[in-house]
Order: sequence, then structure tokens, then C-alpha cells
Amino acid sequence: MKYGIALFPNKEIQDEANSYRKRYDSHYSLIPPHITVKDPFRMTEKEMKDLIPEMKKLANNMKPFTISIHKVSSFQPLSNTIYLKVEPVEELMELHEKLHSGKFPTLQGNPFIPHITIGQNLKDDEFSDVYSSCRMKSFKLEDRIDRFQLLYQLENGSWTVYETFVFGEEKL
Amino acid sequence: MKYGIALFPNKEIQDEANSYRKRYDSHYSLIPPHITVKDPFRMTEKEMKDLIPEMKKLANNMKPFTISIHKVSSFQPLSNTIYLKVEPVEELMELHEKLHSGKFPTLQGNPFIPHITIGQNLKDDEFSDVYSSCRMKSFKLEDRIDRFQLLYQLENGSWTVYETFVFGEEKL
Repeated sequence: MKYGIALFPNKEIQDEANSYRKRYDSHYSLIPPHITVKDPFRMTEKEMKDLIPEMKKLANNMKPFTISIHKVSSFQPLSNTIYLKVEPVEELMELHEKLHSGKFPTLQGNPFIPHITIGQNLKDDEFSDVYSSCRMKSFKLEDRIDRFQLLYQLENGSWTVYETFVFGEEKL
Repeated sequence: MKYGIALFPNKEIQDEANSYRKRYDSHYSLIPPHITVKDPFRMTEKEMKDLIPEMKKLANNMKPFTISIHKVSSFQPLSNTIYLKVEPVEELMELHEKLHSGKFPTLQGNPFIPHITIGQNLKDDEFSDVYSSCRMKSFKLEDRIDRFQLLYQLENGSWTVYETFVFGEEKL
């Protein structure tokens, strides 16, 4: 099975992200707006279940923290993905780091740039139009993060939440 | 905010359901295949947070149970919804009952008929065609249910998981 770990920001931020995603994100219908903290990885169900206590421990060692979004950015020239830039606060970087060390699969590609994708798989022309208008906008979005979610992927490419891990609230 | 409580069956069942939903369910992209155990209801975030301990208690008092799916059925003439019929085992009925008593909002419309919707909002002709072919099929699908999920609805109508409650595993 293919698993991933993500944060879902609050409804205000998700609604804002969806107002762009609806038009510009080919993955709009596959998953709600999210911040990926561990890229999709393959595990057996048994391996996943063995990792659950690790995720609970990790969650119990985290304290809620605030994320902020002020602007739109893009991964170009690496890719044409457009995203809400999530300021890289220490706690978020730490969560990502911990999810890639110890008993967690460490496979890691690009450096971690916290973001909420709002556009992807656009044609070059469309990308230029959309990005040049989006990058001028400024946002004052904040959220208090107190949990992360383990998801798995269905055959149609969509994601289902398997379990939520709330900081300081998990039974070991 | 609008909340709902649902069970997500295993990937095999979700994939099976999606093979129909893709063509016949207008809500295909709004939520993964699910069994609703509490219909959408409105609450403030404060009220929701006050209910979390109740959901944890409820989850801790449940034991994992098995659900079975053998056939397709429909709510006609009440509605044209087509669904995978989930056999109404005692534990599932009890979970539904508990989510509508005590401190939980009791508002309840129709009697509880456990199901996974695979078609809805079809035109009469299409409904007849689809249902007459689906109702002949038989299934041998089973899943062990050990959790339920609290979801909230975004402005675009889609649902995001807020929290998972695992039977016997919640910290009070």
C-alpha cells in the first residue's frame, strides 16, 4: 500500500486553497488541501501497523505550534507547481525531520519546503498567467497545528485517512 | 461548521465501491467510499471540542467487529440512491445508537440502514439501467471495523477528517 503523512490546515485555509485548486490543481478531487510532511512511500499493512506506536510517540513529544501563510510561490524551474508558502517554523521542520529518522523510512528526495499546493500540471502559458497574478497577492493566514494524519492511497489515486495523531493526546 | 461521522472500510471495499461511484455517484470526488454512522449536523467548533471526550469514551467501549457486504440495494422509492448493503450487525447498530444518545445531538431522520453509496442523483432512466444490472451481482466483501472518523465539510462540499477514534485505544 502507498502511504503518506500530511497536515490538514483549518477550514479557512483549506477553503482559500480550494478556490485556486478547483481551477488549477489536477489533484483537486483526490485529497483536501494539505501540507505533506512525508512524501508517499510504500509499506505493507503489517509494517504500517508496526509504525503506529512510533507515530504516537512522536505526536506525544510534539507541542501545538502556529503556522503562517503570507504569499504564493512556485517550484519553478524544478516544476510548475504553484503553492501557498508555509513559513518554515522550527516545529514543522522538526516534525518532518523526525518522520524521516529512527524507525521511519528515511527515503527523502528534495529538501523540505513546507507548502500547500494550489496549482499543478498546468501548461506553460497557463502557468505563467496564473502565477504572475497569484504571486502579487498577500495573505494573513494562520493556524494552530496540533495533529498529523496518516493516509493511504486508493486505486483511483485518491487518499483516505487511516489515523489521526494528536500532539500529547495519544495512548501508548 | 457541518460535521459528520463515518467509517471508512478497507481499501478493497473502497476500490470496489469507487469502480461504480466514478460513473454513478455525483459525490464521487467529495469523500472516499464510507458508511455514514451519523448524518451531517451543525455544531460550533467549541461544541465539537466538548464532544471529543464523549467520542473517545464511546470508542474505548467498543470492540472491533466484522462487517459483510453481499449485495447491492436501493432506497427507492424514497430516493434513487444505489448502495452496497452492509449487513446490520449488532455492533454497528449499537455504534449508531450511541452516537445519537447521551451528549450527542439526537436529531435523527430515517431509520439507520448501513450502506455504502455507489450511485446517486441519477436520472430515472439511468437509475433503472444501472440498478437492474447491479442488483444481480453478489459480493463476498468483509472488513474488520476498529475505528470511526469525525469529519467536517468545506465550502466546496468536500469532507476533511478531523479525528480518528480507535476502539479501545483512546486516551481519556
